[in-house]
Amino acid sequence: FPHPGNSIRGTIHSGAPKRAGDGPRGRALNSSPVSSRTISSVSETRRGLPREKMTENGVSSRAKVLTIDTMNPTVKKVEYAVRGPIVQRAVELERELSQGVKKPFAEVIKANIGDAHAMGQQPITFFRQVLALCSYPELLNDSTFPEDAKSRARRILQSCGGNSLGSYSASQGIESVRQDVARYIERRDGGVPCAPDNIYLTTGASDGIVTMLKLLVCGEGATRTGVMISIPQYPLYSAALAELGAVQVNYYLNEEKCWSLDISELQRSVDEARTHCNPRALCIINPGNPTGQVQSRQCIEDVIRFAAKERLFLMADEVYQDNVYADGCQFHSFKKVLFEMGPEYSSTVELASFHSTSKCYMGECGFRGGYMEIINMDNEVKAQLTKLVSVRLCPPVPGQALMDLVVNPPQPGEPSYDNFIKERTATLSVLAEKAKLTEQVLNTVEGIRCNPVQGAMYSFPRISIPEKAVKEATANGQQPDMFYCMRLLEETGICLVPGSGFGQKDGTYHFRMTILPPTDKLKILLDKVKEFHHKFTQKYS
Amino acid sequence: FPHPGNSIRGTIHSGAPKRAGDGPRGRALNSSPVSSRTISSVSETRRGLPREKMTENGVSSRAKVLTIDTMNPTVKKVEYAVRGPIVQRAVELERELSQGVKKPFAEVIKANIGDAHAMGQQPITFFRQVLALCSYPELLNDSTFPEDAKSRARRILQSCGGNSLGSYSASQGIESVRQDVARYIERRDGGVPCAPDNIYLTTGASDGIVTMLKLLVCGEGATRTGVMISIPQYPLYSAALAELGAVQVNYYLNEEKCWSLDISELQRSVDEARTHCNPRALCIINPGNPTGQVQSRQCIEDVIRFAAKERLFLMADEVYQDNVYADGCQFHSFKKVLFEMGPEYSSTVELASFHSTSKCYMGECGFRGGYMEIINMDNEVKAQLTKLVSVRLCPPVPGQALMDLVVNPPQPGEPSYDNFIKERTATLSVLAEKAKLTEQVLNTVEGIRCNPVQGAMYSFPRISIPEKAVKEATANGQQPDMFYCMRLLEETGICLVPGSGFGQKDGTYHFRMTILPPTDKLKILLDKVKEFHHKFTQKYS
Repeated sequence: FPHPGNSIRGTIHSGAPKRAGDGPRGRALNSSPVSSRTISSVSETRRGLPREKMTENGVSSRAKVLTIDTMNPTVKKVEYAVRGPIVQRAVELERELSQGVKKPFAEVIKANIGDAHAMGQQPITFFRQVLALCSYPELLNDSTFPEDAKSRARRILQSCGGNSLGSYSASQGIESVRQDVARYIERRDGGVPCAPDNIYLTTGASDGIVTMLKLLVCGEGATRTGVMISIPQYPLYSAALAELGAVQVNYYLNEEKCWSLDISELQRSVDEARTHCNPRALCIINPGNPTGQVQSRQCIEDVIRFAAKERLFLMADEVYQDNVYADGCQFHSFKKVLFEMGPEYSSTVELASFHSTSKCYMGECGFRGGYMEIINMDNEVKAQLTKLVSVRLCPPVPGQALMDLVVNPPQPGEPSYDNFIKERTATLSVLAEKAKLTEQVLNTVEGIRCNPVQGAMYSFPRISIPEKAVKEATANGQQPDMFYCMRLLEETGICLVPGSGFGQKDGTYHFRMTILPPTDKLKILLDKVKEFHHKFTQKYS
Repeated sequence: FPHPGNSIRGTIHSGAPKRAGDGPRGRALNSSPVSSRTISSVSETRRGLPREKMTENGVSSRAKVLTIDTMNPTVKKVEYAVRGPIVQRAVELERELSQGVKKPFAEVIKANIGDAHAMGQQPITFFRQVLALCSYPELLNDSTFPEDAKSRARRILQSCGGNSLGSYSASQGIESVRQDVARYIERRDGGVPCAPDNIYLTTGASDGIVTMLKLLVCGEGATRTGVMISIPQYPLYSAALAELGAVQVNYYLNEEKCWSLDISELQRSVDEARTHCNPRALCIINPGNPTGQVQSRQCIEDVIRFAAKERLFLMADEVYQDNVYADGCQFHSFKKVLFEMGPEYSSTVELASFHSTSKCYMGECGFRGGYMEIINMDNEVKAQLTKLVSVRLCPPVPGQALMDLVVNPPQPGEPSYDNFIKERTATLSVLAEKAKLTEQVLNTVEGIRCNPVQGAMYSFPRISIPEKAVKEATANGQQPDMFYCMRLLEETGICLVPGSGFGQKDGTYHFRMTILPPTDKLKILLDKVKEFHHKFTQKYS
């Protein structure tokens, strides 16, 4: 075969062409950073571009195949603030602290991500017992495990190939788990029927959301799919839309009315979008992330009517369905409301709703369990969905097992029931207390205004940033609230996410903080934020 | 807000335009199957297309937002034979059998997918003990668990937020696991250094492969990224390329030389591809899936030289690295060979290699554990990769824990060592026996020719299909080997995957079968295939 270095070819242009929206970078392929040398001294060209270039000392060096200029341009557009630069800096600070570097704080407190166990929340004993039994079935002979845990484990294992969590499941998920999910949804929704065949188990809710968006994207230019998302939003949505090349269509939540959703704003948004894209889907997060509101039944009904009128596929992100704290608030599933609106809606409006093991009282993020239910999906599309998920084989089976336990927990009369209820209630009550505490303390700070944390796990307070600080941030090329949060981190060790990572009305600034730190730590955190905000405001006034 | 049904708008065309390659379907948006009625009697139009149509009984009915004609066209092009129609039929047959329907067989034997535990392979005791300990840390007080299992569990839990598998990990994976992976690679590769920072834990190997392909895709038309894959191939590759809209560039393995890889064929393939796309990556599966060959060291060196010369990003799918059975065959990692070739190559050739918990002696598919190592990746691209994986938060943590155990198993002197070695050796020896058995029996059949199963878990024999059968298949709109496998399934209950699902030279036919069924069942399976092939050939001669 040919020796490397002697294939001199024609002049067809190599590498990706620059595309619109590809950013201001204009480096040529051969001016990428030089990372290494080659011993070949033949300076050759292929497709009209030099393959190697001479470094200063005369050794030729090879440009990389994959560079920032020749990689997928849609990936470059992806942003994900929840794990962005501020979190990377927090990790660095932790490392510095552990190496004995002196800081104005003794520990980094991360309130950037809804990661309950990392913040000290305890797992539900029953869930973990069943997972241990499923992982190591020898334990089924261990008399210290309660019978209901054993019977759940046996049932799960019987549904697994070779009775092992190590087998692939069906791509849509284990059938018995989907049956349990369906029964859970029926109970939750007061008897509205649910078919196991409409349930797809997923790798966390994120996986289901991205899969649904993937199905929906088509067209080019003015007919390109637009997807309506709330602002502020959870940045999975904007990231997925960027990656898929769909058009992000923003609708703004009403901060003045506790982050509620106005139909007139949806109307404005969709009308405007129709001038440049084809809006086909409407995403709702309820209870809200990052905004913590809980939608009223009336609002949900209005949204459904709007989706029907405007022919939008509804995506309801309901992963916080058990996280409702405020008096007078209640979780209503989109599915239930849809079916209560009668067949005009319940037999036509297309809906996908998402749930997860990661939030609520479970907080089992690491297991990546979740499901989606699809309603009124076209049968041919459903077959395509099933095919699409089969390429990745199956969601993680331990996560499926955990999802099963969430939808089929201990029942009255079973040995684990009392303890399960005790643990669940304790976790949810503490969260409710912390939701209230967060709102109360933040609202004592001049220049911070915090809506009630009705549900979910976050507050998203509005912060005043003095003009001088805005100018300094802009001079640094930073968003003002990123500047604020970065200063907060450096001075206090508290890691929050700037509102700009979620989207906000121009000229307003926010941060998202989780209510998850243990109560004593949360108090310290809130006091430090208060003190910091005061100092920061003074400094820049 | 406006009442539904009174928004009469302009005439901008709605829905996705038909695109080239979008298939022969030409249904209009409003002729989709009618699934339900609406009570609105206003027949209105928006964007020039009727939104509702009158059904025969005069009730108007609404077309779906998402139909086969308006969904993502790239998703439609995805195919995945390993879980395709033949497997769906096998599941139906199992259901029929369980309902007492009479069949010419008593059970369905699935040899379609590398799902070891489902075929009766036992998990490694030590791995499952540690997973149980991690899931339910109360067990750390249980004296029946060996100390080495406990110390592994403690180490894993200490690396988890809040000492819980339920916390998110870093997006790239748990740091201590990545350190263990790096040490494993160094040992495997005779000391070639490996940086934990170049390790990304993944959700099975599939996830890593798709992520890498995603980074590589760019350009349009003649500059669109082409990715070279072997034919026959594992259909994850073709499916991912279809979904990403990349150009699949085929190179054919040499069946006559035991599915070896000829550099001249790579050259032909890349030269031809350059006339219509921009080939940027070369994917290799070693040991081979579906073809079971093990590449020689010389061949790997030649491939690396070829990739360097042709400026291709190398992707080495090495998930079967412990599955090598044939005398004289040995697994050589691409990384090791690359570094043995000296700095001309080791400091320039870009390589990603993939491993998984699903294959080898572990067979833990359901946990979706895996890692990839990236070598010589541009730093800016690496930052983009890290950002991209952060959107999905993290790979499943139990799968990360399992990956850790695979790369850090019991050591000599530890209490679990002997049993671990015994179990691992037993599993691999049985696989080696079954590899030989499969080859031997199939080669006794006239009209079947089977290369040695040197490694991996599959044989991919060539089958003669009589002309008359080919015609009947074609008349049915089926690939001849799909027709063959479907007949085999209906008559014997044996589920194999037709070669056409993996790709093969025109006019040749194959099937893929796993060597995973227990030896006694495998013998029955092979005998039945023999008998079936004989009858089939007679019938159609």
